Amino acid sequence: MADTKILPGVKRWSVGDITLTVLNDGWFQGSLDLITGISKDEAGALQRAGFRTQEPRVMLNAFLLTGPGRKPVLIDSGYGSFGPPTMGRVPAALAVAGVAPEAIETVLVTHCHPDHIGGLVVDGKAAYPNAEIVLHSDEAAYWLPDAALAAAPDGAKPYFENARKALAPYAARVREQSGGEVLPGITAVHLPGHTPGHCGFRIVSGDKSLLVFTDVVHLPAIQFKQPEAGVGFDVDGDQARATRKAILADLAADGTRIAGSHLEFPAVGTVSRDGDGYRFVPDLWVADEA
Amino acid sequence: MADTKILPGVKRWSVGDITLTVLNDGWFQGSLDLITGISKDEAGALQRAGFRTQEPRVMLNAFLLTGPGRKPVLIDSGYGSFGPPTMGRVPAALAVAGVAPEAIETVLVTHCHPDHIGGLVVDGKAAYPNAEIVLHSDEAAYWLPDAALAAAPDGAKPYFENARKALAPYAARVREQSGGEVLPGITAVHLPGHTPGHCGFRIVSGDKSLLVFTDVVHLPAIQFKQPEAGVGFDVDGDQARATRKAILADLAADGTRIAGSHLEFPAVGTVSRDGDGYRFVPDLWVADEA
Repeated sequence: MADTKILPGVKRWSVGDITLTVLNDGWFQGSLDLITGISKDEAGALQRAGFRTQEPRVMLNAFLLTGPGRKPVLIDSGYGSFGPPTMGRVPAALAVAGVAPEAIETVLVTHCHPDHIGGLVVDGKAAYPNAEIVLHSDEAAYWLPDAALAAAPDGAKPYFENARKALAPYAARVREQSGGEVLPGITAVHLPGHTPGHCGFRIVSGDKSLLVFTDVVHLPAIQFKQPEAGVGFDVDGDQARATRKAILADLAADGTRIAGSHLEFPAVGTVSRDGDGYRFVPDLWVADEA
Repeated sequence: MADTKILPGVKRWSVGDITLTVLNDGWFQGSLDLITGISKDEAGALQRAGFRTQEPRVMLNAFLLTGPGRKPVLIDSGYGSFGPPTMGRVPAALAVAGVAPEAIETVLVTHCHPDHIGGLVVDGKAAYPNAEIVLHSDEAAYWLPDAALAAAPDGAKPYFENARKALAPYAARVREQSGGEVLPGITAVHLPGHTPGHCGFRIVSGDKSLLVFTDVVHLPAIQFKQPEAGVGFDVDGDQARATRKAILADLAADGTRIAGSHLEFPAVGTVSRDGDGYRFVPDLWVADEA
């Protein structure tokens, strides 16, 4: 029945010669209890002012990069089987975009939280069997060593275990990066705090560019307006806050186009000053932009 | 190739038991010369402030209504063969939504401009062969009589001719309405000015409702912020302006959810006060809302 089939969330955007395709992975139910740095009352008021549910839903996207002379690249993989049933839709979205998992040459991993890397693995096997994984060295050092798992508090151990599980099938083909160009026209931008090796990726083609700023913002109705607000998932909340404030100021000043993992689909737009804070202005949705 | 296939613009939204599916028809290149009521400079500044191109693109959507115990209903039909090649995508979007043209029981026509009714006809035949057309009586009286065509200035005659052409295959099954309930749970709301019989449709299901306000706003970056701004297509610009100002004030006061023919896809959200004017806040995109 038309009404029961889920329509995929797939939208292409052009960045010069490069096509950035946003692949919606779904959403999970969040909570105002996740918010740090501001009061729950203030966070709730911002949700209401943004016409969003009191207890926020958290959206999730992964990204596909294609273009002339390039093999397809993923940025993150979605939650895969690690998340709730409302998620794990990246493979279906990728199929709509016309790209087979075997064709993915590289997966650029922004960070090792399960909603970003859970989709790398299916039944213990590589979901992208021909892909190299590119990961910041600080991220690998934080999540992957045996000593890190051993030292993690019990409540955090599943995150460490999931990171190991997701990357295990790729053990022989993980390339560590430490910022700078990771593929032609694609530069890793270290945005630490949310996790130690949390990275965005800047895509440049001709005179066009776009920054996939990934988890700088998790809850758009709250954190653009009030960048003090963080989330409980931040490994270092103070550093994440400082990173967010600095990058939002830069983005609003220079008008850089961005995409975000947790921005509302189709998740591409520009940051604008709005009073003491900021506002995200989505790009115009045009079907045949790419 | 993945990059050359146009991905359809189809998004479902729930209004209680009723599913409103937005069907993107495409876009056409507009111009600041279209703007009435404010200066071209002011209009251009609003486009820039909204991160939109200086010369505005005009987006277009039609709408599908489905639900338990209902036969599918369309609101408008898109531009069909009357428009440029960047338009006419409603049939493809409808196919993605899983509804055959033969299944459409009713087409609620908001008004007789070609971008709203051009898709009713294909090669002189009814595109929706089993559909009844529902149209405001003032709209029928303005566009369809022979005397109206004869009296129209030469420059306007094609609009009259196109209206007659689009409705001709349905001659025996046009139902005129004059406001009020047109189908169970669906009420015509007369919003005159843009055209004499221009109508929105209010959809009510249980305690949920949504107003398809259609052509109250053509250029979102300009007309929400500055409701004085009209478009050259308005048959009665002063009346259209008064209608727009009144309905926007109501919508911002009561938080009514709206959909619009020329709002940016996926075209559903809420009107909020913003300084002296208004702002449109899109609803949260959730893949499986319906």
